Amino acid sequence: MTSLDAAGTRTNGEDPGGKPVTTANQKTVVDDTSVSALLERGRRLATPVLRSAVARLAPPMDTVAAYHFGWIDAQGRPSDADGGKAVRPALALLSAEVAGATPETGLPGAVAVELVHNFSLLHDDLMDGDEQRRHRDTVWKVHGPAQAVLVGDALFALANEILLEAGTAEAGRATRRLTRASRHLIDGQAQDISYEQRERVTVEECLEMEGNKTGALLACAVSIGAVLGGADDRTADALESYGYHLGLAFQAVDDLLGIWGDPEATGKQTWSDLRQRKKSLPVVAALASDEPASEKLAQLMAADAKKSQAEFEDFDEAEFAARAALIEEAGAREWTSQEAKRQHATALAALEPVDMPAHVREQLTALADFVVVRRR
Amino acid sequence: MTSLDAAGTRTNGEDPGGKPVTTANQKTVVDDTSVSALLERGRRLATPVLRSAVARLAPPMDTVAAYHFGWIDAQGRPSDADGGKAVRPALALLSAEVAGATPETGLPGAVAVELVHNFSLLHDDLMDGDEQRRHRDTVWKVHGPAQAVLVGDALFALANEILLEAGTAEAGRATRRLTRASRHLIDGQAQDISYEQRERVTVEECLEMEGNKTGALLACAVSIGAVLGGADDRTADALESYGYHLGLAFQAVDDLLGIWGDPEATGKQTWSDLRQRKKSLPVVAALASDEPASEKLAQLMAADAKKSQAEFEDFDEAEFAARAALIEEAGAREWTSQEAKRQHATALAALEPVDMPAHVREQLTALADFVVVRRR
Repeated sequence: MTSLDAAGTRTNGEDPGGKPVTTANQKTVVDDTSVSALLERGRRLATPVLRSAVARLAPPMDTVAAYHFGWIDAQGRPSDADGGKAVRPALALLSAEVAGATPETGLPGAVAVELVHNFSLLHDDLMDGDEQRRHRDTVWKVHGPAQAVLVGDALFALANEILLEAGTAEAGRATRRLTRASRHLIDGQAQDISYEQRERVTVEECLEMEGNKTGALLACAVSIGAVLGGADDRTADALESYGYHLGLAFQAVDDLLGIWGDPEATGKQTWSDLRQRKKSLPVVAALASDEPASEKLAQLMAADAKKSQAEFEDFDEAEFAARAALIEEAGAREWTSQEAKRQHATALAALEPVDMPAHVREQLTALADFVVVRRR
Repeated sequence: MTSLDAAGTRTNGEDPGGKPVTTANQKTVVDDTSVSALLERGRRLATPVLRSAVARLAPPMDTVAAYHFGWIDAQGRPSDADGGKAVRPALALLSAEVAGATPETGLPGAVAVELVHNFSLLHDDLMDGDEQRRHRDTVWKVHGPAQAVLVGDALFALANEILLEAGTAEAGRATRRLTRASRHLIDGQAQDISYEQRERVTVEECLEMEGNKTGALLACAVSIGAVLGGADDRTADALESYGYHLGLAFQAVDDLLGIWGDPEATGKQTWSDLRQRKKSLPVVAALASDEPASEKLAQLMAADAKKSQAEFEDFDEAEFAARAALIEEAGAREWTSQEAKRQHATALAALEPVDMPAHVREQLTALADFVVVRRR
């Protein structure tokens, strides 16, 4: 985990895990330029294809989708809103290079994965009643629930359409992997919803849910380009394993940011996940710990559960800060930070047996590092 | 249209088009036994595969889906509710026989098409706010909107999963057709929603919407088995054409039943589509007609449009009867009935150039006849 630790240096000593992550002996730096360039290439190549795919939708779905992607505002005027990090398309293009193919070979996969990701965002925001995403009103809030359902469906169908258009055996194999990932995504959302209604969720259940919601599609992104480029199933499976654990590392960091993230950077409220009473990894890990703080947290949460959401959100900042402090006292902030590092290491280990060009391996490594040290 | 007309005899002289459809010279009878046997075979072969597919879903989605299909009631007790006519699976199995394959060859296609159909029902009922389907509360009404979104998504993903599992080139081609049909289905729902908000819809727009909502998936059902059985694209396209026009015939009859259907048979309220202010084919055809009744209807509808849905539904029966009478006076009940017959004839004409076993052709013909004379 040399590079991960060193990456901590870059973020000036504190990561969301709350501990300085640099040790004096570890000096490698994350190749930030390389990651930016990779994400930029993903956006540059995938966006035009994504836009022309979305333009196939019957009105008003094309407009609603364009709003969701940040290409227009709520009034239909051209806009250049933050469309997300676009990690998935970048991974899909790099994935093609693993198989020795051009990045462009992975393009239908990049677009398909991005479409499935956005289908799930549209539906999840509606199901969860989330009103904001990327500093903007969500689709159901602006265009109504029916359009959120409909445009989500359309993006999902479009993903398979784009991928199958080549009509090759590779496209068929890629579609099977995408379909499997989509089912995991849906399973994960089902688990997320049902866990919210339960008093206790185990750490294992939480990890399974996060693996489904985040790991499965990243796994697909990082294997789909290789499959389109003719890689065998063994290579594709190893890449999936990298992507899956990368997803779990990503989600662990997300869960840390959801509690201790800087609102300026994340675009979310302070203590965002606590306000939503999310049973995220730090919360379930805290409840599972043997520390005295765990019992105190459980008591507070049992009382919280009796409150209405509105009542709960009206809490004083200090109330949320107290809960966050208990989670940290129970050791769960540190545990989650370590968990991110463990998943990061497992991801990189999965790449080892895969034969690939050196520059591709470097970039996959840099991307894994980036995911773990990001602040938004 | 010999057999269609004769089929009218079977329904005792009046079809929902309101005119006796028998002429003295046309005596062929619809082979009712054959259609029942075909639908029964579809259900018998497809249901176990459908059930085991649905059992793959993570809880509680498996239970919600089982409720939707009528296998359990709202309390989770085993049930044997009406699961619909299951025309699509029956067509998919027959479709395999067109290509000289066994009906079982079409089974993954039958199940996939039925899953897509039910995905669209789950989401459409939610978007349209429909509280009843097949005499039972809809899924969103029983299990909440989030489950309706989620289980719909899961059935959609499952459809592609089931179809792609064989891993053959035929499975890939079949999935492309299914994906195209799914996109049409979604386009049709988008049109349906947007037409509801408009004052005027042309007959052409209405037919396009109905072709998307009903034609496209029937087209897929009747070609998917043949594709899985190795048929070439020309054969599959001809079968799609039969299915598409069969769908338009089906929908024209549905629109007649939506106004003049017998509530006992259809399970819907009297004047069901008028109560919902649906711009169905008889309504748009009446508004497009030159008859004086057309103008009167337009005036009533303009006044109706200013009323709230609750106010409107509280109308006296006589108010709806008056609107139905104006539609009939404008010639639109007869026109829609004739349109069903035209689509029926076009469907059968599409089959002519396709080489297939005689008993398969007979059954496709009998099915087309059944669709047009049905009373529910």
